[in-house]
Amino acid sequence: MLNFIDGGVCAAQGFRASGIHVGVKTHAAWKKDVALIVSDVDCAAAAVFTKNVVKAAPIHVDKAHLADGRARAIIANSGNANACAPHGEENAERMCAAAAKAIGCMPEDVLVSSTGVIGQTINIQAIEAGVPELYAALDHSAAASDAAGHAIMTTDTVKKEAALETTVGGKTVHMGGIAKGSGMIHPNMGTMLCFLTTDCAISPEMIKTALLETAQVSFNRISVDGDTSTNDSCIVLANGLAGNEPITAKGADYDAFLTALQALCVELAKRMASDGEGAKHLITCTVTGAKNEQSAETIAKSVISSTLTKAAIFGADANWGRVLCAMGYSGEDFDPDKVDVHFASAAGDIAVCEQGRGLDFDETKAKQILTEHDIEINITMGEGEGACTCWGCDITYDYIKINGDYRT
Amino acid sequence: MLNFIDGGVCAAQGFRASGIHVGVKTHAAWKKDVALIVSDVDCAAAAVFTKNVVKAAPIHVDKAHLADGRARAIIANSGNANACAPHGEENAERMCAAAAKAIGCMPEDVLVSSTGVIGQTINIQAIEAGVPELYAALDHSAAASDAAGHAIMTTDTVKKEAALETTVGGKTVHMGGIAKGSGMIHPNMGTMLCFLTTDCAISPEMIKTALLETAQVSFNRISVDGDTSTNDSCIVLANGLAGNEPITAKGADYDAFLTALQALCVELAKRMASDGEGAKHLITCTVTGAKNEQSAETIAKSVISSTLTKAAIFGADANWGRVLCAMGYSGEDFDPDKVDVHFASAAGDIAVCEQGRGLDFDETKAKQILTEHDIEINITMGEGEGACTCWGCDITYDYIKINGDYRT
Repeated sequence: MLNFIDGGVCAAQGFRASGIHVGVKTHAAWKKDVALIVSDVDCAAAAVFTKNVVKAAPIHVDKAHLADGRARAIIANSGNANACAPHGEENAERMCAAAAKAIGCMPEDVLVSSTGVIGQTINIQAIEAGVPELYAALDHSAAASDAAGHAIMTTDTVKKEAALETTVGGKTVHMGGIAKGSGMIHPNMGTMLCFLTTDCAISPEMIKTALLETAQVSFNRISVDGDTSTNDSCIVLANGLAGNEPITAKGADYDAFLTALQALCVELAKRMASDGEGAKHLITCTVTGAKNEQSAETIAKSVISSTLTKAAIFGADANWGRVLCAMGYSGEDFDPDKVDVHFASAAGDIAVCEQGRGLDFDETKAKQILTEHDIEINITMGEGEGACTCWGCDITYDYIKINGDYRT
Repeated sequence: MLNFIDGGVCAAQGFRASGIHVGVKTHAAWKKDVALIVSDVDCAAAAVFTKNVVKAAPIHVDKAHLADGRARAIIANSGNANACAPHGEENAERMCAAAAKAIGCMPEDVLVSSTGVIGQTINIQAIEAGVPELYAALDHSAAASDAAGHAIMTTDTVKKEAALETTVGGKTVHMGGIAKGSGMIHPNMGTMLCFLTTDCAISPEMIKTALLETAQVSFNRISVDGDTSTNDSCIVLANGLAGNEPITAKGADYDAFLTALQALCVELAKRMASDGEGAKHLITCTVTGAKNEQSAETIAKSVISSTLTKAAIFGADANWGRVLCAMGYSGEDFDPDKVDVHFASAAGDIAVCEQGRGLDFDETKAKQILTEHDIEINITMGEGEGACTCWGCDITYDYIKINGDYRT
């Protein structure tokens, strides 16, 4: 039994958060740019990072700090990616040290993330000067999670936050998260940050396993523009305060925890896809009847990543040929003559392609369906039992505008 | 010694061409929509086709007709892709039969190509009714090649045509081509058609080998939007009228022919990239110092395919971080700390990244450089001797506009 609740990263017992403006974002002094999340007690911690060969400095630091599978806090900034930048690792370590000093823990117990422009020296002085105020602002409230959620935004138009409660081993367990990511989102963690907290008792090994199993079916199944960034990170902290029998192996308790973590992360992933830079539509592509799940995933990802399909959805144009085309170049082998395609939304459902051939369909109805915000592309393949859902968004004039002059 | 000359597909001896409007394009009666290219004598013929699993009907027909490595003519239409469409192969065969009847050859000696909307039945009656006029319009002139070049255009804003002469075995050999392709262009032949003619004497086996070696370094090194289409085809006809000793194996003559064919196709490929839908810039990305040529090609393709890099060039924004980012997710392994990046154009050359770190550079000069039409992104990697050049274009508001409502 899962219930979505309020509170974001502060929904779980023993977590406090804050977000303030310290000056990393120079062009918008009213925008928060540093966030802090702290657990009252030591946590089991795990993270997944970008697969980009070019990795930002904080990722190298976090990998070292996570060697023992434990952490107390996360400090994160927006406005500067601290990637390909002078003194990158030194400055990432200084962010951890500043937070650790305020909290009263070891720098190695602090994790760090950055997002923003690549290649420019981060304003470490502003961050160090701001940490006492950031620490003082820590609070258990939903408003505190909201502040942290805003402090990690870049081109995001809305804050992404979600939380839920479930039962693990007879105890009520809470978990919540904040996330950012609107451009560059792609399978394998394109520029997204996601910080998750839970009061579940779980070992470092099992939290890591659960996070990997979760990222695979949530963040790795969204795409905005195919670019994966240097900074993408998803970090989870589990402080054990729910008092459940600690999860140390797979079993019923692990399954309950995993189900909840996946539900939480799918919700955050959909919010990221829906807020793709300039996007007007959330596109949900579900492939069924593929030869296996991997094949279904590859095909669904190819469809949601197709620039031409994204442009067609922007234009509310039921151009299903582009869907078939994107399936065809996905790299998967299949029989096009067995493919059916439907477009659907709150306004209805319309069959546009059957057995690989175009159907005569009501263009007016199709236009109505595609004018809704949430669009479904439903594909059946007739090859087997494999199924997968992936999420993306349309491409718009605003995407070009936002990304044509991001640095200035 | 290569000389670019006029005449397109009519530059080589013994080739005639024509292009007229027959009614496949219903919304624009002044636009040519069917082209015919005919050799006076039988030709060695070869083709490369899309790797998309979903293949248009003409491709299946052409593969059968090319079984003997010989052909006389090509008939092609724009306005309808004859892909995923009812009666696809039947109608593709009817196009060949209609052309063969007019020419007085076997239908199997005619090749066929289509480009346009997917999934709608092609207006075969209009094509059959128009073939006599199309045949009557055949001519050796440059104007005839121009008409054929226009008849295969869809969203192209300019006709693509080139020709050159060279010396093979002591004889002057001519070759020329027309091409279309502006959206969906991508490595592996995204929606492009290219028809090449030459009077060189060469065996079917060697013309096929030369075409494969040429496509690899020309059409497969351009990208507009990452989508590869169902219809992409490049066909070459060689009628032998230059009177050179026929090329039947590799050697000096083959090398001379290959060099010329590659120069011709690189020129056509650059014109396609430059005319990417809505594009304002041709982007030439050259990678040197990669561990090998394949690695250089993968990295250069990743850069020219990056939507974020394309948006930055549209905005004349020297956002080199996106270049490094695209290199990093290319799938190739390399040391980011050895990478240098320059932007260059007719307005100058500027170093923006050295040894993986951002340089302080003159933003005004960078803006000047990036305001030119032809932009170079030059990357050195310090890994080895591998080098490769790929071509792409920026992404603009017009790309979204063109593709947001293509069918209506």
